[in-house]
Amino acid sequence: MDASDRLRPVLRSFEPYDPAFSPCRVNLSANENTHELPAEVRSAIGAAFRATPLNRYPDPMANALRDALAARHGVSRERICVGNGGDELLFNLLFAFGGPERTLVTCPPDFAEYANFAAMCETPVTGVWRDAEDFSIDGDALVAAARDAALVILTSPNNPTGDLVDRALVERLLAETDALVLVDEAYVEFAPEGSSVVDLVATNPRLMVLRTLSKAFGLAGLRVGYLVANPAVVDALGAVRQIYSVDVVAQAVALAAVETRSALAPVISDIVSERERLIAGLANLAGVRTWPSATNFVLARVPRAAEVRRRLRDEHSVLVRDFSSAPGLEGCLRLSVGTRDENDALLDALATILREEA
Amino acid sequence: MDASDRLRPVLRSFEPYDPAFSPCRVNLSANENTHELPAEVRSAIGAAFRATPLNRYPDPMANALRDALAARHGVSRERICVGNGGDELLFNLLFAFGGPERTLVTCPPDFAEYANFAAMCETPVTGVWRDAEDFSIDGDALVAAARDAALVILTSPNNPTGDLVDRALVERLLAETDALVLVDEAYVEFAPEGSSVVDLVATNPRLMVLRTLSKAFGLAGLRVGYLVANPAVVDALGAVRQIYSVDVVAQAVALAAVETRSALAPVISDIVSERERLIAGLANLAGVRTWPSATNFVLARVPRAAEVRRRLRDEHSVLVRDFSSAPGLEGCLRLSVGTRDENDALLDALATILREEA
Repeated sequence: MDASDRLRPVLRSFEPYDPAFSPCRVNLSANENTHELPAEVRSAIGAAFRATPLNRYPDPMANALRDALAARHGVSRERICVGNGGDELLFNLLFAFGGPERTLVTCPPDFAEYANFAAMCETPVTGVWRDAEDFSIDGDALVAAARDAALVILTSPNNPTGDLVDRALVERLLAETDALVLVDEAYVEFAPEGSSVVDLVATNPRLMVLRTLSKAFGLAGLRVGYLVANPAVVDALGAVRQIYSVDVVAQAVALAAVETRSALAPVISDIVSERERLIAGLANLAGVRTWPSATNFVLARVPRAAEVRRRLRDEHSVLVRDFSSAPGLEGCLRLSVGTRDENDALLDALATILREEA
Repeated sequence: MDASDRLRPVLRSFEPYDPAFSPCRVNLSANENTHELPAEVRSAIGAAFRATPLNRYPDPMANALRDALAARHGVSRERICVGNGGDELLFNLLFAFGGPERTLVTCPPDFAEYANFAAMCETPVTGVWRDAEDFSIDGDALVAAARDAALVILTSPNNPTGDLVDRALVERLLAETDALVLVDEAYVEFAPEGSSVVDLVATNPRLMVLRTLSKAFGLAGLRVGYLVANPAVVDALGAVRQIYSVDVVAQAVALAAVETRSALAPVISDIVSERERLIAGLANLAGVRTWPSATNFVLARVPRAAEVRRRLRDEHSVLVRDFSSAPGLEGCLRLSVGTRDENDALLDALATILREEA
């Protein structure tokens, strides 16, 4: 039997998102937080697991976690929707508000799952491409495209280019179009204080901000993301989501992590200073170009990038992400910021390979 | 803003599945396993949690868990697809193989999520209703309906009626129709040895069997379900599912539970004998009718059922599930089998209320 014959036509020969993982000594490919969590956070997480019965169905809306997240952002519980990672919320947004007649506007190069989920939900995508040199967004072109759109997704800071979206552009989009606007702030904890637009949600019913515990919080394996949005959007998603999608352990551990988040500050500031050290180290390598980053990764254009990435993996057991054949990212690798030792291993291996390739 | 105006039309005024939970001293409403897990299983689960880094993304296909499940059923890894609870797999099946032109056939009264997910995926549903007296399925009517269907879902044992589907009927459906056939065996561990049809998957490419760790394994809070199916079906689902839907803790804890499953046998056999004791106890109550059950719950027709359920909850803090206004289940409550003490509390409270209502 060929099961793909039975798939809905739009899903035939669909390729899943491929994280291109292979086991390596140093894995800097997925923008994970590779620092050990502070003892206070680890201890709160362990206690949360031990106190959680596994045999009872989860609270569908994860209200205890929701309350802690609402407190974090100074909003009410009704403005928070928790999901099984940001991925589930992105899918649900496309599933709920997309469809054949409703356009999604994005600013590629950006996170590949937006276009992926849009395709699954038969939602046409208009890409307003970033500047090939500095990855800036053409605000006029974006606003023009968004006038006919159901949904706009901006990523701030953007993956994989590392730059923030202008707050004024978000405000302009909300003022001059009727679209729902999602700002994906998965990496915003690594950006300068005040970079988030989450405070705009209170006065802009069409604005939604996506956050995750996968990056700064170091919980990528646990799959917890959330939206800060208008209560009407949260209610609409509540009706289409799978009610038990966030399991009891994810809820309890995430709650413990959110409650002890002040202990994470030294980890985050170490990652930020390591990022700048990595950028400085890359500047010393001939032929390598980098861009400023407000995230826990650095985009670097490298001569013979695909080959360099292969040699990093196979000869040095250092894994980074290859975007060199992605449109708009010719020759680019994405290097997650690791611990000092990991970053040194990456810089040393890169220096060796580039010397040999020269 | 009214966000529901922006929803795809099919999703407007959509109501989510409502488990009708309220906090009670004795919760026998959700068919959870309320027995304490054996020490061997608890200890393996705790060790699995402690050994699992939370900061790395999950293995998308959960291959270690998949291998253990494959070994459980004597099949190869390629026949197993793990999901974030059975719910995610049910949604994915409807999302992948459903749609406006493809009919789902079910045998209601059955699990409400089938029709719910079908509606979300714009899939028409043909219900071949069970006999109003004994809940048996009219095989000829089912086969006739399935001739034009894309997908048939049979639940064996069925929720909430408790009865098994005839193995011969599954074989007949596969022989006489071209439909994909899903047998949902969420409760099969409580049924007599040999009740599963999972062995038929090897020779029937259109057969899929859904299993879960939410019931006999006592892990409802963790959200792990899986399909045993043809590799072509597993591949097709692999392309539409969210790749990180099953988190690292769920994968590790589920693996520990599957590997120590022989220790669960005494728990399961206690639940089975408590089920029979509960049925016998209900037979002593005037006006109560029960049906045989191959599950961890009992369906009971009770005079003034909705009022009895309310009084159980409000006066005795015992929660059961009210199906009395569901089509085909007039006057019925679903009573999960708990521990001996919980079942006694339920029987005592029921006896008191029914005496007062008489």
